[in-house]
Amino acid sequence: MVKTKKNRDMLGRDGLISVTKAQDILINSLSGIPCHTEEVELADAFDRILAEDIIAAEDLPASPRSTMDGYGVRAADTFGASESMPCYLSITGEVLMGKAADGEVEKGCCYKLPTGGLIPRGADSVVMLEHTVPVDETMIEIVKGVGSGTNLIQRGEDIATGAIALPAGHQLRPQDIGLLAGLGVAKVKVSAKVRVAILSTGDEIIDHREQPVPGQIRNINSLALAGLVRKAGGVYTDYGIVSDQKEIFLPAMKRAVQENDIVLFSGGSSVGVRDLGEQVVEALGPPGILVHGVTLKPGKPVLIGQSGSTPIFGLPGHPVSAMVCFDFFVKPTIEKLSTSAIASQLPTPSISARLTRNINSAPGRLDVVRVQLEQSGESWNAVPVLGKSGSISTLSRAHGYFLIDEDSQGMTENSAIKVFLFK
Amino acid sequence: MVKTKKNRDMLGRDGLISVTKAQDILINSLSGIPCHTEEVELADAFDRILAEDIIAAEDLPASPRSTMDGYGVRAADTFGASESMPCYLSITGEVLMGKAADGEVEKGCCYKLPTGGLIPRGADSVVMLEHTVPVDETMIEIVKGVGSGTNLIQRGEDIATGAIALPAGHQLRPQDIGLLAGLGVAKVKVSAKVRVAILSTGDEIIDHREQPVPGQIRNINSLALAGLVRKAGGVYTDYGIVSDQKEIFLPAMKRAVQENDIVLFSGGSSVGVRDLGEQVVEALGPPGILVHGVTLKPGKPVLIGQSGSTPIFGLPGHPVSAMVCFDFFVKPTIEKLSTSAIASQLPTPSISARLTRNINSAPGRLDVVRVQLEQSGESWNAVPVLGKSGSISTLSRAHGYFLIDEDSQGMTENSAIKVFLFK
Repeated sequence: MVKTKKNRDMLGRDGLISVTKAQDILINSLSGIPCHTEEVELADAFDRILAEDIIAAEDLPASPRSTMDGYGVRAADTFGASESMPCYLSITGEVLMGKAADGEVEKGCCYKLPTGGLIPRGADSVVMLEHTVPVDETMIEIVKGVGSGTNLIQRGEDIATGAIALPAGHQLRPQDIGLLAGLGVAKVKVSAKVRVAILSTGDEIIDHREQPVPGQIRNINSLALAGLVRKAGGVYTDYGIVSDQKEIFLPAMKRAVQENDIVLFSGGSSVGVRDLGEQVVEALGPPGILVHGVTLKPGKPVLIGQSGSTPIFGLPGHPVSAMVCFDFFVKPTIEKLSTSAIASQLPTPSISARLTRNINSAPGRLDVVRVQLEQSGESWNAVPVLGKSGSISTLSRAHGYFLIDEDSQGMTENSAIKVFLFK
Repeated sequence: MVKTKKNRDMLGRDGLISVTKAQDILINSLSGIPCHTEEVELADAFDRILAEDIIAAEDLPASPRSTMDGYGVRAADTFGASESMPCYLSITGEVLMGKAADGEVEKGCCYKLPTGGLIPRGADSVVMLEHTVPVDETMIEIVKGVGSGTNLIQRGEDIATGAIALPAGHQLRPQDIGLLAGLGVAKVKVSAKVRVAILSTGDEIIDHREQPVPGQIRNINSLALAGLVRKAGGVYTDYGIVSDQKEIFLPAMKRAVQENDIVLFSGGSSVGVRDLGEQVVEALGPPGILVHGVTLKPGKPVLIGQSGSTPIFGLPGHPVSAMVCFDFFVKPTIEKLSTSAIASQLPTPSISARLTRNINSAPGRLDVVRVQLEQSGESWNAVPVLGKSGSISTLSRAHGYFLIDEDSQGMTENSAIKVFLFK
């Protein structure tokens, strides 16, 4: 169905809002939606998001330990010792790994210690093996004196009882799992994975395993979006290809809204299908449509709505547009619904590169320009991958993208740009 | 057991080799080790590595399609049309989504077309809806002429039959899955996930869920390394905590070597346990030990060996050192064993930051300095997280790290540095 759309100028831009504005509207609408949590074994917690602060229940380490192979000593006994004027200590004991020392280091004496070994009573520092010379079985020469507290880690120095080991909202990296293991944490309360429904609509769309007849198109978006959901830390349910007849599409959307935390549909970018999407989002109940159309290229015709506490995204049918919209709107939504805590925001790492040609941009529009990276001596060139937003191969050929801001009219050849990798 | 180690200077650095040299020895030793493959459904192929080139078996799109809502026309009919001098075309047909057009666009005529609709015979371009004015049901006014090929995507323009859609060795991103769906690929042959055995050794180590008595330490490394293996795309088997008595440790290592592609053990960093590791790696058969000790901080005492075609890594007992060694040696090994293809090397994205204090480094040693990032206006400060390599919390507090090269003696306050994020 082709019909004239009201309220759009020749560039179809009337009524469009900026990406930042759309993101603000979206994020505001998500406040108050509760996050679900679950408890998992620490070994299964990698990449999960903490639902509560983890407080250290004990000191780590629980007792002072040596950080070197060497001898536990009283530092005062070694003051001033040097190659030319060594001091001599009696070896009166040895600490074995995994055992507490029996006895105590007396004045003028020392204990053999392995790395990680407990510091015996009496000793307050460790002389490295390399700074000793054996005299006989019972005596060593110290050729370099140590100050008190040298070569050992104090009780609670790694983390002390009562300290926040990790805050709620933190995504668990391997070293965080390690820290929690060290603290004896067996299970952790984490955010439940956000459930995302994926529907494809359009009577011309067929499953990717089928052979199209003229006019039909294989379903690219469902699998590509599923990959993006996984990458963003969510889990997806593929509701398949749904007819774009309202009496079929609306009930399918109702079910998806009931069964998920977020619903995505992507459909033809034609005006008719866009109108159907708007009707259905409104029919699913308030608050309904929040945003339709943003000043983003590709990705302009995105539709953002909400039914009760379920955000709904109508993504453009063009795969490249759909995926760009996912990154700007769906990914932040998955992150927001994953934690009620304010996670610390780090910048997105990028690669410095040089643009190989001029790229024009319409002012008032955020452009996402796909590029290939090519090495050039020590530095990198960014070669724009041009192509229509319906062309999925342009996105597959690209290594990443850079942004041209709303207030810019483009970038000139040889500009230094920041490239963000897809991956 | 404390015993003097031959061939080391006061800094323990004799016999150590550079990280680059160690990596070269390692990667060379891996050549010829066969990669395993498996076939998976396309929907399950996200993040997997292609084991063979994917050749496009058909043109994408299979027929020319409109990229706009509008009218399919003969471009020649519209030449010179403008607002002040429009041309008029008869609407003689309409293309519906998913259907081939019946009939043909004659001279002076046009067909209605939705975005994505097939271009009917006769037409060679599309006039956007926005550049038309309806006259009545059967006629439109064209207010802007088009050149041939405008607003459509040609057959095979996205990808043409016989082209390499994706090369062997490529890790499948969401857009790559999308491209393969578009090409009708149902299953893909991918590298089998590399199987990594993880053993912890040391009689003082206990499971993280147990309560230590004095001298005992909870097992941090196994879970932290498991997270790193997952992050690197491998799968792990946890062989638990194995006694550091040779008659127990050697058979456990033998079994791990038989059942896996890579074996990691981490143990006390004390000289005695290091010696046991060396003995066991030699006892597992040739080629045996390849590297012991690198000029890396933290991470110096790493042991790299191989038994038959199974690489073996003896990682330092200190968690921070173990994790740094993983990144420099184990991760590249997992990647190398994942594909026999030469994957295109992209630089690692980083964050530009300013160092907040002087950091000294011994020349001849690669230093991995952990930092926290703190926002400072528009830019970022990198605050070094100092602490002993036995202190797992230093790694958990850090957002990332920067490197001080072997030929540098350190970095001064306010230096511009590149921070690589952990994650």
